Amino acid sequence: MRTVAIIGAGLIGQGWAIVFARRGWNVRLYDVQTQGLGGARELIVQQLAELQRYGLLEDVQAAADRVSIAESLQAALAGADYVQENSPERLEIKRAVFAELDQYAEPHAVIGSSTSSLPASEYTESLPGRHRCLVVHPVNPPYLIPLVELCGAPWTSPQTIETARQIMQELGQKPITVRHEIEGFVLNRLQGALLHEAFRLAAAGVASAEDIDTTIKDGLGLRWSFMGPFETIDLNAPGGLADYCARYGGLYQSIGATQSQLVPWDEALVGSLEQQRREQLPASQLQERRFWRDDQLMKLMRHKNQTGDKHGQS
Amino acid sequence: MRTVAIIGAGLIGQGWAIVFARRGWNVRLYDVQTQGLGGARELIVQQLAELQRYGLLEDVQAAADRVSIAESLQAALAGADYVQENSPERLEIKRAVFAELDQYAEPHAVIGSSTSSLPASEYTESLPGRHRCLVVHPVNPPYLIPLVELCGAPWTSPQTIETARQIMQELGQKPITVRHEIEGFVLNRLQGALLHEAFRLAAAGVASAEDIDTTIKDGLGLRWSFMGPFETIDLNAPGGLADYCARYGGLYQSIGATQSQLVPWDEALVGSLEQQRREQLPASQLQERRFWRDDQLMKLMRHKNQTGDKHGQS
Repeated sequence: MRTVAIIGAGLIGQGWAIVFARRGWNVRLYDVQTQGLGGARELIVQQLAELQRYGLLEDVQAAADRVSIAESLQAALAGADYVQENSPERLEIKRAVFAELDQYAEPHAVIGSSTSSLPASEYTESLPGRHRCLVVHPVNPPYLIPLVELCGAPWTSPQTIETARQIMQELGQKPITVRHEIEGFVLNRLQGALLHEAFRLAAAGVASAEDIDTTIKDGLGLRWSFMGPFETIDLNAPGGLADYCARYGGLYQSIGATQSQLVPWDEALVGSLEQQRREQLPASQLQERRFWRDDQLMKLMRHKNQTGDKHGQS
Repeated sequence: MRTVAIIGAGLIGQGWAIVFARRGWNVRLYDVQTQGLGGARELIVQQLAELQRYGLLEDVQAAADRVSIAESLQAALAGADYVQENSPERLEIKRAVFAELDQYAEPHAVIGSSTSSLPASEYTESLPGRHRCLVVHPVNPPYLIPLVELCGAPWTSPQTIETARQIMQELGQKPITVRHEIEGFVLNRLQGALLHEAFRLAAAGVASAEDIDTTIKDGLGLRWSFMGPFETIDLNAPGGLADYCARYGGLYQSIGATQSQLVPWDEALVGSLEQQRREQLPASQLQERRFWRDDQLMKLMRHKNQTGDKHGQS
């Protein structure tokens, strides 16, 4: 039975604890604010129970029993085969935390950071164990959205990335490799590209925020929930992807030429979008809607488990 | 009981026939190549049977009986309350077809074009009934992907757009309004923005085509199958969309500044992506995989019908 040390027990750390505990790992939970750890563990157990309610977990009690609170960083790391770091997104904090993690973690342990914005090269360069450090970036919540981005620094060893990949796959996550450090990695770059066009269309008055959302959720997003953009176009022309590019490349190049301008997310534009959202969903209902979102994600995960792709990955 | 004239009986025309027939409309199917109409009707009935097999249609025979073949354009249009045009994407063809449609259609009939690339202003300007012409752009297949883009020319009457919207809503489609003509309308502009970043990442060697696809289908695409990008970010910060923009706007602006360059879809890049796709899916299995995609879409539609959003639209 293997052991993970979860360092930082906020929302992301809690999500990781669930991912590991449900697949049989021992989970040691640690946070510098030790007084919050009991509450964090309670929230983890609540979410485990939710997963069971949706048929996504068999034994809540067994999973919950595997999650323990560590009283110190050293206690969390002793005997841990893998370390997942979830401290605040500030460089000086990452530097201090990684120095300690590298000092006290077991020699064989790989150390992954959940950061979405700080590449590993910025806080691991001077560490003796810098070869075993990398970014292991999840989507929130990781127990419902399996995508994980692996991105090493230039000095991260191939074996470290391979180990992280194997661990993530065994956990049921879907790891991808970001081959060199780039701002936003892959996921937020793709999300950003779509968001920028959505903001651009809204700013130009081409469509309402609601209609842009509808275009995704009742249009493009349906196929994208089980196929990526390349497979989508590969199947959308008789001869496959190259055939698609020959047929429609001109149209997309022409569209693309009008998409280079970056629309500032200024007060006027953001204010208009915020107002449109509040007309659809009052601020007082945001939390309720988040529960609805998680309910939808749980049902979608159950659906995808049932209709699983034997051919591809998902 | 209302009647639609479907002009052009290829894949898109067949898809529209299914959308109308399953909701009780009389469907008149016409194509300049009249000899193909019998085959087109057979394919329509086959797809209606598929819908029934997935629990998405109750009475195939009744729906099939509502689909008839018209021997001439005039016969198709006589008594039709709505006209959906699906001729090839060439301006001179659209001009000739729309002139005939406007001449022979009932005075009260709205005329919609399925075009994905030609704005209505380019082929309706000189028509006496130009106020009743607009683009009604579906996604393929429209009986599984409900999004429909409505886009009038400057002279299209508001009543025409409203009538088209009501018809589409009654059919169970999800119409959005593209407020002024723009290349690619909304859907293909959003798809293009994502594709361009996907091509850019592949060209820079940041990730494989397979990993980029995984990032969507096991990451971003899950939420996007029931929420649009604006609702997604609205729920991803405690205070809603404006709060999200305040927290992450800097990151996205910084990412966006590196996304302005348009990567050419040249032989080297397209060839590399085509090769990666063929390693995942040999050309000989493309058709089988398209059946798999439609199977996934049918199951997803059934799933969405069951988990329907009482709060929002989907």
